[in-house]
Formats: sequence, C-alpha cells, structure tokens
Amino acid sequence: MKKLINSPETVVTDALEGLAAAHPSLSVDVANKVITRAGAPRPGKVGLVSGGGSGHEPLHGGFVGYGMLDAACPGEVFTSPVPDQMLAATRAVNGGAGVLYVVKNYTGDVLNFQMAAELAGDEGIEIAQVVVNDDVAVQDSLYTAGRRGTGATVFVEKIAGALAEEGADLATVAAVARLVNERSRSFGVALSPCTIPAAGKPTFELGEGEIELGIGIHGEPGRTRGPLAPAAELTAVALDAIQGDLSVAGDLMVMVSGMGGTPLIELYLLYNEVRAYLNAHGGRIARNLVGNYITSLEMRGFLITVCHLTDDLIRLWDAPVETPALRWGR
Amino acid sequence: MKKLINSPETVVTDALEGLAAAHPSLSVDVANKVITRAGAPRPGKVGLVSGGGSGHEPLHGGFVGYGMLDAACPGEVFTSPVPDQMLAATRAVNGGAGVLYVVKNYTGDVLNFQMAAELAGDEGIEIAQVVVNDDVAVQDSLYTAGRRGTGATVFVEKIAGALAEEGADLATVAAVARLVNERSRSFGVALSPCTIPAAGKPTFELGEGEIELGIGIHGEPGRTRGPLAPAAELTAVALDAIQGDLSVAGDLMVMVSGMGGTPLIELYLLYNEVRAYLNAHGGRIARNLVGNYITSLEMRGFLITVCHLTDDLIRLWDAPVETPALRWGR
Repeated sequence: MKKLINSPETVVTDALEGLAAAHPSLSVDVANKVITRAGAPRPGKVGLVSGGGSGHEPLHGGFVGYGMLDAACPGEVFTSPVPDQMLAATRAVNGGAGVLYVVKNYTGDVLNFQMAAELAGDEGIEIAQVVVNDDVAVQDSLYTAGRRGTGATVFVEKIAGALAEEGADLATVAAVARLVNERSRSFGVALSPCTIPAAGKPTFELGEGEIELGIGIHGEPGRTRGPLAPAAELTAVALDAIQGDLSVAGDLMVMVSGMGGTPLIELYLLYNEVRAYLNAHGGRIARNLVGNYITSLEMRGFLITVCHLTDDLIRLWDAPVETPALRWGR
Repeated sequence: MKKLINSPETVVTDALEGLAAAHPSLSVDVANKVITRAGAPRPGKVGLVSGGGSGHEPLHGGFVGYGMLDAACPGEVFTSPVPDQMLAATRAVNGGAGVLYVVKNYTGDVLNFQMAAELAGDEGIEIAQVVVNDDVAVQDSLYTAGRRGTGATVFVEKIAGALAEEGADLATVAAVARLVNERSRSFGVALSPCTIPAAGKPTFELGEGEIELGIGIHGEPGRTRGPLAPAAELTAVALDAIQGDLSVAGDLMVMVSGMGGTPLIELYLLYNEVRAYLNAHGGRIARNLVGNYITSLEMRGFLITVCHLTDDLIRLWDAPVETPALRWGR
C-alpha cells in the first residue's frame, strides 16, 4: 500500500490537523472529529450539519463555511461518524432555529444521524433530515437499502446552505434540500480501485483493460464490468442510465467530479462529452462544476451528477459561498 | 493504458473544448490552442502570457482570468507550445502596455518563448520575460539546463497578475515576477509514474515500495529513489532540501500541490507535517494553498513550494482573483 500517511490509525486526525491549520475560517475539534464554521452558532440561523465516512474529500469538511455547511462530522475512512459526533456538531451550530442534517443514503449514516436526531430532540433542538439518494446505478448495494447518495449531496449542501444563510426557517430549508435531491441523478465509473488505509489492500480488483460501471463512492460494485472504452462511450453509458430514470431535457446543473485520482485534463474532456450528449437530448447546461468534489480516496474514475434547475435554484446556487472547496461571489 | 480519453491524438483539443464550455469567462481558440480572458485585450494593461506542455492542469489555462493570466498556450502533453501559439496569444492580449511571458525553465519552453518574443518585437510589441526555476532537486535534468520551474509558477502568475491588474508598467510587473521566483523554492516526491497518452506506457517504473525523491513534473528523474516512508519523513526530506538552499525562517507562503492522482486527505495530512517542520525551523506560514495546482497527469505524489513573503507580496496575493482554479475576493 503506497500512501502519503504516517500510520493507518492516524490518517483522519492527521488530515484534520492539516485542514485546521490551512483554514482559519474553520474551527476543528480534532479529538471529537467535528469541523465547524468559526463563530458558530449563529443566533436565529438554521444550522446545516452533514457528515459521513472520510475519504471523500473535499466532501464534507471542505464545504463548511459561509453559505454552505455549518458543521461536518468525518468518520474514519469509509465509516460512518457516530451519533456523539453528530450531537456535538448539532450543539455547536444550534442557533435556536433548528438544525438540518444532510445524510447520504448509507445504512450506517442513516441510523447514526437518526439516533443523533433523537438525542438532540431530547435536548430541545429541532431537527430535520434530508436523505440524499441520487445514484441511479443500483437499487440496493453493499452498504445501502435503496439508492446510494453521491454527487447530489454537493448541490444540496450549497443550495440549502444559501437558503439558510438568507434566514429561511427549518421547514423551508429542508424542503429545498429535498427538492434538489429529487431533481438530481448520478452515475459513476471507475478505472481503478482504492485502498482503505486500515485494510491495506484494494477494495476490489480490476483487470488491465477492465472498468466498473455504476461504481459507488466506496468502491462497492456497480452494475457491470466491461472493457475500457472511449470517453464519449463511457459518458453515454452514464447518461443513458440517468436519462433512463429521468429525462435530461431542460435547464440543468452538471457536475463532473473526479474520484480522487483522475487528472483534471480528463475531467474537462469528459465534460465536453457530457455537454454534447445532453445538448443532443434536449438538455441545456446552465451551471457546472468540473473537478474533485466527491471522491473515493485515490480511485481513478468519474461521477456525473445532473440536477434540473429552476430559477430559484439558480439564484441559490449563485449566492455567495466561502468554503475551502467552493468559493465565489463575496 | 487506462485513460478517460477518446484518442491519444485529441486529448488536448477535446479537453480545451470542455474548458471552453465550462468557463464562459474564457475565450478559447481550440484550433490554435490559445486560452484568453474574454474581453482581451485590455487597453493600457500589461498582458500576462504563460504556457507549457499540457498535463499540468490547472496550470496554466485554469489561471486565466481577472487578476492573473491574460492568456495561456497549452502544448501537447508534456511538450512545449510553439512560437506561433505564443505570438497569437501575445497579439490577443496586447493592450499597448507590453506583455510579460512567464516561462518555466525547460529548454523547449525557453527557446520557443524567446522566438515568440522576437517575433512580437518585430511587430512593435514590447515583451519582458521571467524564467521560473524554483526546483532545488536537481541542477540540470533531462529537459532543463539549470533548475526546473515548478510550483513557484503559480505564485508568480498570481502576484504579477495582481500587479498588472492594478495598472503597473511592464518593468514593474516583470520585477515582481522575478522577485517571487527568487524568493521561492520547491521539491517534489512521486509514489507512481504517469503515462503520456501518445506514448502509452509509464514514463518510468517504480517498485512496490519504492518512491522517487526530487521528481520533476514530467516524471523526469529526481535525486534518488528510496523506500516509501511516513509522511513526516518524506516532508522532512523535501524541506531539508529546500532549507539547504535557502533558510525557511520568516513569513512564508506554502503550497502543497498534488501531482494529479493524490487524494486531498493526503495533501492535508502532508500540509500538517509541512507546518510542523517549518515552525520548528523558524518559519511562519502566513498564506497557503493545498490542492491540485500543478500536476503531472495521474501521477501520485506531491510538490512543496515555499515562498518568502513581504508585506507587498501578501497584499498582491490577497488581491481579488477570478479564474477557474483560483478565485477569491470579488
């Protein structure tokens, strides 16, 4: 296992130390693994909390800041954070207007956030939850009942974060988060596996010219394996799957995210194919993200996420944001 | 060779199509491979042009925009752009106040930019050049006479770009670019090689537990090979080399850039080690960048760049910038 780490046991806390040092706009409780915006809680503002296993950076810690998340709870690599972490984050960001949990649909995450919600409720903190389940690749998976939550999480966190920043109440913020999830679909492709530090060996094996279609963000199996094909064909497989679930016609926001080990030149090349496909199927890309936004350690591959926009969603997407990984407009 | 491409011949132009589609703030001449800021030239403003082989994204095209470059000329992968490209870029951004070329010290780049400068001079366009040569790893290399130009290029482009945006004249902008280069040092480490699409096989081979210390951004050999070691040790090797050339005591800007295939969690972990080392040696990090800023396709590894700051350099670094890869403050 070749990794730039000190030891498998300290990967997450060592990286959190680095995140804290690099971004004074964050307040990082390394021991409890809770990342909050400096200055939290903000009285009267709905708090946004997300979390999940580490290894998907910049998700979620890189999205903590003005106009997006108030706190993130990173678990160990590919392992759900625990309810105590989530409760600590909830207390830290509760400004009296309630807290929204943004939960990717993995069984551990869902159960633990549910438990945290109950604990927070016992303390009188109002909690709402949105479960993100945008991945069309498989109906159930190793770690999920129902669809997995992947790229739409980035859109949900940005758009709900903007609305919370405007002062909307908890029900309204939760509603827009659900709306974004309902209007989003994702599909991923892997060229190579990744290695969980504590495991020391790849999560799966792929042959020399073989790829995995419909991969999950933990390396869990997708729909099928097949031979490597040109980018235009791979893009069509991904978008056919998305289009088979929900028409891509209309005004869209599109993210082409690398899986962690994919060079940017390939992501822009893929984006060009995505655009050509969508245009040919009645889609018009109004907003886009190209880069590493939700990853699987050093996995090579890509994730395409498509979201159907409305004027209001565009406005909230364009609203100022100031986080380590997304930043514009202020 | 596993790559997300359509064909080795069209990698660069396909990716440029995607870049153009993703960023309406850029004007991309795909056929001639020239990326300019929309709205160029800007009358009375010194133009900043850079370029080099593709495969180092976001360098340079991702740094075109307000407060940074006016144009970039990408060559084929790891291949210098040609003088005609550079001349086209120069004409496109010449607003009458002259043009600064930011050149990484590789023989092909230096010769071609020199030729472009002569051609532009013949047309009455005043040209200044800064050759970036910050890499302390080797004195000469496969592609270089003298030190290679690596991470300091990002600092030079940002800081000189900010000064040009303020309306400084060509000599002043060129002087600050040289100052940043003189005050910067870099060192890189590779865990894995990369594959040039047209070559189809890795640029070099590394054993299972073997790494390359002092690697160049094209996979050209470094100082030595050695066994994989903990991140703290690898960081110390890199910073010992930098410190051996120029003391790290004082106020610093530090970049920890991934080589393209390195996950962000590892980069933050490395940043934490870099900070500990620098603090122990009298250095204080006043500004930082952690992410993929100058890469080598899908290579796994990192590049550390350290720049000694002045109050004026901090002011120019903090000035607003709006490019695909760096964005803040407006």
